Amino acid sequence: MNRDHTCGQLRKEDVGKKVKLAGWVSKRRNLGSIVFIDLRDRYGITQITFDENHSELVKDIRNEYVIEVDGIVSLKATPNPKLETGEIEVLVENCKVLSSAKTTPLIIADETDALEDVRLKYRYLDIRRNPIKEKLLLRDKVTTIVRNTLHGKDFVEVETPILSKSTPEGARDYLVPSRLYNGRFYALPQSPQIYKQLLMIGGMDRYFQIARCFRDEDLRADRQPEFTQIDIEMSFADENDIQGVVEEVMRNIFKDVKGIDNLEFKQLKFIDAMDKYGSDKPDLRFGNELVNLNDIFEKTEFKIFRDILDRKGLIKGLVFNHNFSRKEIDSLTEFVKIYKAKALAYLKLNEGVFSGSLNNALSDEEKDALKEKLSLKDGDTLFIVGDDKKIAETALGALRSKLGNELGLVDKNQYAFVWINDFPMYEYSEEEGRYVAAHHPFTSPKIEDLDKLISDRANCYSRAYDLVLNGYELLSGSVRIHNKELQAKVFEALEITPEKAKQRFGFFLEAFEYGAPPHCGVGIGLERLIMILSDTDNIKDVVAFPKTASAMCLMSDAPNVVDEDQLDFLGIELKKKD
Amino acid sequence: MNRDHTCGQLRKEDVGKKVKLAGWVSKRRNLGSIVFIDLRDRYGITQITFDENHSELVKDIRNEYVIEVDGIVSLKATPNPKLETGEIEVLVENCKVLSSAKTTPLIIADETDALEDVRLKYRYLDIRRNPIKEKLLLRDKVTTIVRNTLHGKDFVEVETPILSKSTPEGARDYLVPSRLYNGRFYALPQSPQIYKQLLMIGGMDRYFQIARCFRDEDLRADRQPEFTQIDIEMSFADENDIQGVVEEVMRNIFKDVKGIDNLEFKQLKFIDAMDKYGSDKPDLRFGNELVNLNDIFEKTEFKIFRDILDRKGLIKGLVFNHNFSRKEIDSLTEFVKIYKAKALAYLKLNEGVFSGSLNNALSDEEKDALKEKLSLKDGDTLFIVGDDKKIAETALGALRSKLGNELGLVDKNQYAFVWINDFPMYEYSEEEGRYVAAHHPFTSPKIEDLDKLISDRANCYSRAYDLVLNGYELLSGSVRIHNKELQAKVFEALEITPEKAKQRFGFFLEAFEYGAPPHCGVGIGLERLIMILSDTDNIKDVVAFPKTASAMCLMSDAPNVVDEDQLDFLGIELKKKD
Repeated sequence: MNRDHTCGQLRKEDVGKKVKLAGWVSKRRNLGSIVFIDLRDRYGITQITFDENHSELVKDIRNEYVIEVDGIVSLKATPNPKLETGEIEVLVENCKVLSSAKTTPLIIADETDALEDVRLKYRYLDIRRNPIKEKLLLRDKVTTIVRNTLHGKDFVEVETPILSKSTPEGARDYLVPSRLYNGRFYALPQSPQIYKQLLMIGGMDRYFQIARCFRDEDLRADRQPEFTQIDIEMSFADENDIQGVVEEVMRNIFKDVKGIDNLEFKQLKFIDAMDKYGSDKPDLRFGNELVNLNDIFEKTEFKIFRDILDRKGLIKGLVFNHNFSRKEIDSLTEFVKIYKAKALAYLKLNEGVFSGSLNNALSDEEKDALKEKLSLKDGDTLFIVGDDKKIAETALGALRSKLGNELGLVDKNQYAFVWINDFPMYEYSEEEGRYVAAHHPFTSPKIEDLDKLISDRANCYSRAYDLVLNGYELLSGSVRIHNKELQAKVFEALEITPEKAKQRFGFFLEAFEYGAPPHCGVGIGLERLIMILSDTDNIKDVVAFPKTASAMCLMSDAPNVVDEDQLDFLGIELKKKD
Repeated sequence: MNRDHTCGQLRKEDVGKKVKLAGWVSKRRNLGSIVFIDLRDRYGITQITFDENHSELVKDIRNEYVIEVDGIVSLKATPNPKLETGEIEVLVENCKVLSSAKTTPLIIADETDALEDVRLKYRYLDIRRNPIKEKLLLRDKVTTIVRNTLHGKDFVEVETPILSKSTPEGARDYLVPSRLYNGRFYALPQSPQIYKQLLMIGGMDRYFQIARCFRDEDLRADRQPEFTQIDIEMSFADENDIQGVVEEVMRNIFKDVKGIDNLEFKQLKFIDAMDKYGSDKPDLRFGNELVNLNDIFEKTEFKIFRDILDRKGLIKGLVFNHNFSRKEIDSLTEFVKIYKAKALAYLKLNEGVFSGSLNNALSDEEKDALKEKLSLKDGDTLFIVGDDKKIAETALGALRSKLGNELGLVDKNQYAFVWINDFPMYEYSEEEGRYVAAHHPFTSPKIEDLDKLISDRANCYSRAYDLVLNGYELLSGSVRIHNKELQAKVFEALEITPEKAKQRFGFFLEAFEYGAPPHCGVGIGLERLIMILSDTDNIKDVVAFPKTASAMCLMSDAPNVVDEDQLDFLGIELKKKD
C-alpha cells in the first residue's frame, strides 16, 4: 500500500502519529518558503505542509500530480471548519511523485463551467469532482439497500441473458450479428420481461435483478441507450403484495439516504388521476386539482361552451391564487396549444370583481356558480379549457404542473408517492390505426372488464400500475396473464394473429401450458430514482460513463468503424449508398 | 396472496392451524378414496391430503398443475423423514386449480435422463428441478457474500457500459451496428478492463462490479458466449493488498457455503509451478511433484537422453505408486503425445527389481541414482519425458493431473488454493510470428526485469498473478502500468506502433497524462467458482438461461432472422454468398 490512512481519515486524536498518505494534489499554496498542499482522495482532503527544509521535495509538484507522503500528524493553529480533517495537518518528512499530470482540461472542483462535451470526453476527470463521485456512490448505496431489502423477503437475484431474442415492447432493438449463424441476430433485451416470467413458471417464486436494458430510441434528455432497471417479479401474489414490497424498498432507501421515515403512498385510479390532475404522473406535492364544470354550463348560452357540451366534450377548470399579466396569459395560451387545446379561457376575481376573457361571455349566474363551486377568492385566476375530454384534461394537467413549479407551490423536500392503478388495457395508435397494448401484451385485464376485451376496447382497463413520485414515473408494473386462453384472447384483441404470436414468442406461450402460477412484477428505473434522490435533471450525472443524446461515447469514440474482415466473419456488409 | 405459508414452512408446532398453500402438484397417490398430493414450491414439499369428502375436488388434477388449497395442519401418523415438513400434512378443505399442465417433456425430479437439448429447450421446467434451482440460489448467495465483503472494505460497485468499444484482449468481439451512425459499431465488452482502470484514474479508489462479459469464441464445454466476472480494482495497492482482499472474499464464501474456515492460500512463482507441477494451474490436493533428472543423466550413454541434454533439453520424472499395465502405459503414451512429447519412458520397481522401457537402456548406476533421488519404493512407476523444457514440463504436468484424478489421489472435500505469481510478460505467438502480451498489454513488468522489456522478452516476467483452486484457474489479475513512458515501451515490445496504439486505445493512454495512481486488480470467473462450489463440470448448470456450444439458445431460438427493414435502419445487409 502507498498509504496507511486515507485523506479523509485523520483527526485531532491522531496528532503525533507518523502516517503515510497518497492522493491527488488538489491545491498548492506558498507562504514564503512553506508550501501547503490539499491532498485529495475519494474519502476527503488532508492538508499536508512542507516546511523550508522540505520545500525542495515539492518544487516540481503541480495540481493533479499523484504523490505519496510520509509525515507527522500535527494540530493546526487555525482549524479549517470546511474540512472534516480540518483540525490537523501532516508535516511532511518525505514525498514521492507517483505520477505527474498535465494541466487538466477541466478544473477538479465542485463547481465547473466546462462544457458538457469536454466533461464527457474526459469523464475520468469529471468523476474526480465531488458532485459526480457522490452520485456514483449513492447509486451503489441504493442498489445495496434494494438488494438487502429484497433478499430479506426471499427474493433471489438471477442474471438473465443479454444476448437474447427480440422482445415485443415497441422500441427498437439493438441487434448483434451472429458469427456462427450468418444472417441471424441476437437482440439486446429492452427488459428481462420474458425471462422473469419464465422464472416464475420455473418456480423461482420471487426474482429480482438489477438488470441492464437497452433501447435503440431517439434519445431524449432523460434517456440513455442502455439503462438499469430494478426488475422484480413474484408468484402467488397480486397488486397489493407487490406494491407492499416496493413500498418497503422505497421506505428503506429514503430512510437511509434522506433520513425520512414517514413516507406515505397514496392510491389513485388512472381515471381519477386524469380527472383530478390531468396526468397519469401527477405531482401531489401541491393541490390545485382540476374541476369538472360541465354541470355549471349545462344550460349555458355561451356558444363555444354550448357546442362543446353538445358534442359530449368536457369543460374543465383550474384555479391558481395568482394575478397573471396579459403577457403571461398569452404565453400560457401558447403553452396549452402544445397539448392540442384550441384556447385557454380565464376569469379573474379581484376585490370582488370578475375580469378576464370569460367575463363578458358568461352570465352572472354562471359566474356566481363558479365562485361558489370553486370557492373563488380574491386574487384567484380560473383557467378553463373546453375540448374533447382527453385534450381538456391533458392540457390543464400540463398547465397545473407548469404553474405549480413556477409559482413555487412545490416543497423540494417533500416526496409524494402515488400508485396509479387500473391503467387502460389498450391505447389507440393513430399511426398504426389500431389498438395496441398500453403496457405490454402480457398484462392482465381487470377481471370485471373481461367481457370488454374485444367488444369495448376503449373502456377495458387492466391490472397495470405505475408508481409516481413528485410527477415522475418511477416504475411500471402489472399483474400478468398466467392463463393461455386469456392470453390468446388478448392477442386477438391486439390483432396479433396466432401465427404471428407463435413466431414472435411461441416458446413463451408454450411455457404457459406446463403450469404457470399467478404472478406480477415491476421494473423500477434506477437512473430516475437516483436523479430524484440527488436532485439532478441530467441523467448523465448518475451514469459512470454516459453517452450523448445521439448514443455516442465522447470519451472512447464508440461506436467506431471496424475492420472489413470482422464484418466478413459476421456475414454482413455495409449497405451501399444509393 | 394465494398462500399464507410456503410449502417448506409448516412444522409440528403448526398442527391445528388453518392454512392456505399454493404450488405445483409434484406427485399424487390414491389410497382408496383418499388422495395424497405432494405440493411443491421453491421452499419445499408439503403433503396435502384429500379425504373421501373432498376427493371430488382433486379428480382432474394431474402432475405440475398449479393449485391453491385451504386446509388444516395435522400430525402425520407416520412421519416422512425425507421431508423437512414430513411430520405434518394438510387436510384439504378447499382446492382451486390456478393453472393446468400438459404432460411435461421432462420429469421434474432430482435425477433426470432427459437429453440436454430437451432440458435446454424447456429450461423453465429444468429450473423446477432441485439440482438446477439450488445452483441458481447458490449463485445469488455467493454474489451477496462478495458484495458484502467488498462493501465492508470500501469498494464501490460501479456499472460500466455494455455498449462499448473494442477492447484489445485477443478474443473476438460481439459487434452492435449503430443506427444513428451507419457503418459504425459498438462492441460488447470482453471485460470492463479499460473502464475500471479509468475509474482508478478518476479517483474511485476501490471498485468492483459483478460484470457481464462477452467473447465471440468457438466455445468449449466450459465456456459461454456471455459470462459473469467478479471484477475488482484498487488504487495505491500492490499484489499483496489485492490478494489479501480476494482471500477475504474466498474465506467468507467458503465459510458460508461449505462451513470451512481454515482455508490456506499458498504462493508459487510461475516458473516454480511449471518446474514442480508442469502447469500454471496445479492441483495441490496431491503431491507427486515433477523432478528434474538432468543431473543424473549428465554423463549418460543412453543416446536419446544424451541428445536431449546436448541440445539443452530437459529430462523430467514423475512417480506414481501404481503398477500400470502394458495397455495403460500405451494409452498414457498416446496421452502425452497430445502435449507434443515424442515418447513416454518408464521404469517400474517391484520387489526390488526394475523393469520397464528404460530398464535396459540405463546403467545400474543411473537406476540406483534414480532410486535414491526419487526415494523409489516397491510398486512405484517412474515416468520420464525428455524433451524441450516446455514440452517435458507440460506433458508430465498433464499426466500428473490425469493420474492424480484417475488413481483417486484427490480428496474431493479439500480446497487447495494457490497463487501463481510472476507470469511471463510475453508469450510467443507462432501464428503471428511475434511476442504478444501474456496477460494484457496494461500489465506491469517486474521492476527487476525492466531492462529485459525489449532486449530479452523470453525472460521478462510480469506482475501478473492467477489464483488457482484444485487445478482450475479461478481468476487472473495484475498490477497495472500507471506510467505513460513505461506503457509506451511495452507497446514497443509488443510491436504495437504509436499510431496503432493511439487508434485502438488513444483515449485510454491520454488518461494516464492526468495523474494515474498505482493500481491493480483481478477478474474472478463467477461461473467457474459456482461450478467448483456445487461440484459440477457443466457450466450450463450454473447459468439460468444458458446457450449451447454453438452459442444458440434452444429455448428462444436466438439468434434468429430479423426483418429486412431492421437491417435497413442499421445500414447493413447480409453478404451475398459467392
